[in-house]
Amino acid sequence: MRTCISCQLMYSKYQGSACRQCYEDLKAKVEQCNEDLNAKVEQCNEDLNAKLAFLTMPQPASFSDVVLFADDDDEYPVPVLAHKAVLANRSPVLRAMLDNEMKESLSGTIKIGDVSYNALRAFVNFLYTAEVCLDQQLACELLVMSEKYQVQHLKDFCQKFLVSNLNLDNSLSTYTFAHQHNFKPIIDAALTQITASMDKLASQDEYTELKERDPGLLLEIYEAYFSKQADTTMYI
Amino acid sequence: MRTCISCQLMYSKYQGSACRQCYEDLKAKVEQCNEDLNAKVEQCNEDLNAKLAFLTMPQPASFSDVVLFADDDDEYPVPVLAHKAVLANRSPVLRAMLDNEMKESLSGTIKIGDVSYNALRAFVNFLYTAEVCLDQQLACELLVMSEKYQVQHLKDFCQKFLVSNLNLDNSLSTYTFAHQHNFKPIIDAALTQITASMDKLASQDEYTELKERDPGLLLEIYEAYFSKQADTTMYI
Repeated sequence: MRTCISCQLMYSKYQGSACRQCYEDLKAKVEQCNEDLNAKVEQCNEDLNAKLAFLTMPQPASFSDVVLFADDDDEYPVPVLAHKAVLANRSPVLRAMLDNEMKESLSGTIKIGDVSYNALRAFVNFLYTAEVCLDQQLACELLVMSEKYQVQHLKDFCQKFLVSNLNLDNSLSTYTFAHQHNFKPIIDAALTQITASMDKLASQDEYTELKERDPGLLLEIYEAYFSKQADTTMYI
Repeated sequence: MRTCISCQLMYSKYQGSACRQCYEDLKAKVEQCNEDLNAKVEQCNEDLNAKLAFLTMPQPASFSDVVLFADDDDEYPVPVLAHKAVLANRSPVLRAMLDNEMKESLSGTIKIGDVSYNALRAFVNFLYTAEVCLDQQLACELLVMSEKYQVQHLKDFCQKFLVSNLNLDNSLSTYTFAHQHNFKPIIDAALTQITASMDKLASQDEYTELKERDPGLLLEIYEAYFSKQADTTMYI
């Protein structure tokens, strides 16, 4: 019997073993590999980030030729300055509004309906920087905007946020929201979250309200649960 | 004596060894580490490239509000379309020309002196995409432009290209060019290349012409060579 230099346990000569040199070489390889990983990721980040920094324009830039307003019935709405070229480049819908001789193009003013000033500002800022600091409320507003104005990159961003932010408390409201706008990946993720804790479903805040307003939606949850149960039973 | 499961060589019991399990675990770790490396680099590339693709604007975009001309005495120069906001964001010099009530801002026309149409088009395209396909001639033209208009990202790009593109045939002309505009990193790299093959110096095409035009420049090369020689001798 001898002692392993790594785990310090005894092993018999019949179990086979690696000599110290081979083991140490391999250990050095793991360390090297980890170092390489960090260096490569850093390098990759550095090059692309330099390019990104160069191409990113600050949103409230000069030479603005269009203003956006959140059309929320405010008597004195705050304008968000922008450039037609940037808006048109990021959103095919905004491009169509600006390209043709529509009132938006002629007046240099775009009214965005059903949206808060904060969401509009974050939306326009994202068009310039591809960055946004989300919370649940803002992610929902921006997801709807990105769908309406076909800004796929923002849509992906918001969907990822809402899916990764799902928890027991918000799963039912997120599910309802996603259902209303037919955001499939969020519907699926929320359904998985809800059906994993069915005993908590009826105690959620929105349950009673939803039972009144849209009982069909709750039925779908129950049906999904039992259809999943049936699938599991089949495989047992 | 026993045989190592890795190198298959015999080793004695006094040399220490790792049991098969520890060795196999470590081997799996190396493989995992390599996989992680590729996945991380790919993910990092994917995320940043998606962001880049979103932020990059095609240069000949609509809603242009300024045109640039290569001021090369052509009677009918070809205009290069652009946006004031983009030019101003990428170059502080162009910003100053456009911001103030200078003739460029008022007329919406910028004349760029001492530059070919091709270089101007590549320059403006770089301001929009951070990309350019360089050859020796274009790299030199763009380096001078990036210095004049203070576009650091393009300057770094061209300097790196010229340094990595140095060879026996172009080292003297590159050195002369870099000296003329005082591009320190290129001067140093070219000098290293030249002094490494001093016996070829006098046979280069530019040598005779340079001997007439700027003998001081050649003297500096000889001096640099012998000062390096002296340094090397000191350390022997």
